[in-house]
Amino acid sequence: MSNFCIILQYDGTKYSGWQKQGNTSNTIQGKIEDVLSKMIGCPTELHGAGRTDAGVHAKGQVANFKCNTEMSCEEICTYLNKYLPLDIRVISCEGVDERFHARLSAVGKHYRYQIDTGEKADVFERRYLAHLPKKYDVEAMRQAAQVLVGEHDFKSFCDNRHMKKSTVRRIDSIVIEEKENRLSIDFVGNGFLYHMVRIMTGTLLEVGEGKRKTEDIQRILDAKKRDAAGFLVPAQGLFLMEVFYEKNNN
Amino acid sequence: MSNFCIILQYDGTKYSGWQKQGNTSNTIQGKIEDVLSKMIGCPTELHGAGRTDAGVHAKGQVANFKCNTEMSCEEICTYLNKYLPLDIRVISCEGVDERFHARLSAVGKHYRYQIDTGEKADVFERRYLAHLPKKYDVEAMRQAAQVLVGEHDFKSFCDNRHMKKSTVRRIDSIVIEEKENRLSIDFVGNGFLYHMVRIMTGTLLEVGEGKRKTEDIQRILDAKKRDAAGFLVPAQGLFLMEVFYEKNNN
Repeated sequence: MSNFCIILQYDGTKYSGWQKQGNTSNTIQGKIEDVLSKMIGCPTELHGAGRTDAGVHAKGQVANFKCNTEMSCEEICTYLNKYLPLDIRVISCEGVDERFHARLSAVGKHYRYQIDTGEKADVFERRYLAHLPKKYDVEAMRQAAQVLVGEHDFKSFCDNRHMKKSTVRRIDSIVIEEKENRLSIDFVGNGFLYHMVRIMTGTLLEVGEGKRKTEDIQRILDAKKRDAAGFLVPAQGLFLMEVFYEKNNN
Repeated sequence: MSNFCIILQYDGTKYSGWQKQGNTSNTIQGKIEDVLSKMIGCPTELHGAGRTDAGVHAKGQVANFKCNTEMSCEEICTYLNKYLPLDIRVISCEGVDERFHARLSAVGKHYRYQIDTGEKADVFERRYLAHLPKKYDVEAMRQAAQVLVGEHDFKSFCDNRHMKKSTVRRIDSIVIEEKENRLSIDFVGNGFLYHMVRIMTGTLLEVGEGKRKTEDIQRILDAKKRDAAGFLVPAQGLFLMEVFYEKNNN
């Protein structure tokens, strides 16, 4: 069996998220598995690096699947793009070591959250921006973000109340950029809990609005309770940008 | 009666164009007139500067309507944006001279055509770009475009075979820019015939592909026959950017 790694872009607007669910056929994993299975001639499972939520987009999702095929990587790429809807595209395909697993082998991820702070929601980019029209103190947000950087227990920033595994994660950087009516927040870390990026973003925006202070961030981390953190920002502003692997993995 | 001028942005993807038609309710004019009429309390006609086709977008469409109202321009703007779908936005509203007519008073227009020349259609911008993945000789296109600049009979670039009025128009400039996998062509002129921008674009792309030469452009103009010109590019790449008026008009 060969192991193939594909890099994907998708517009998550219409989909119920990445992960295939019992009765929900409208998922990105489901759409791709349908085409893959047709291509290969037998049911084929696709392992995605990040289980993006309903409405979340990806510019660099990574996934892998195993199969016996005579097709070249280029042929696989062409076939998938021919039968996939236009809002899901395969950017590349390559053969990888049989031990490579898109999710389990990943050592880090880069997410970006995009906000439209203008009074009127942009007509052409509205699917890819959260419209949160307020004045934000970006410098205060940057200071607060630095408290989140490093290795912490992010339990307060997790919406899975039944999480039994460790909620400790390491955030390598949070970069906030402002340009006219746009605010973007880039998060790089070794892993992210359920809704973690969106809760961190909501919390930082509350700092930007003056509702919370930099000192509150450490208290939120210490509380280890979801209620201590800020609001959950909408899914549509979130992009999975890139997934990182050790060099020798593929 | 007061005369109001509004500037509009819209994503034309879902609509059957600007102009209200007998049995087609899904037009941009129709959508706005419905909200206007509700706001004012009686049927109200909206005059648009450009009758954009199905699928064509606008970043600066201009329209006017007359009514008796106590509402301020800001209140009108807020009301319209509250009840209009998110893919149609009113950018501004102002009171204008009673003789102002968005179409008849216009002295010029600026259209932009956007092309994605990359092998794979961009996932996030696909609604706003025509995907025409080829290599184009942009310098040849620029030279050919200069033949179109000036006052000419553009009958060969008009898809209305029953056009009884003059087909003479003046093009002030055609600017072609290339950036990575994107090609944009900006047309500024005193008026444009039915499909004129899209046929000029198709013809220039055929020059870029080497199918036609700069010298052919004058022959196409002279022929005064639609068949002489190039193909009609898709609607989705076209934007009405701006409409120009004499300064004293409003």
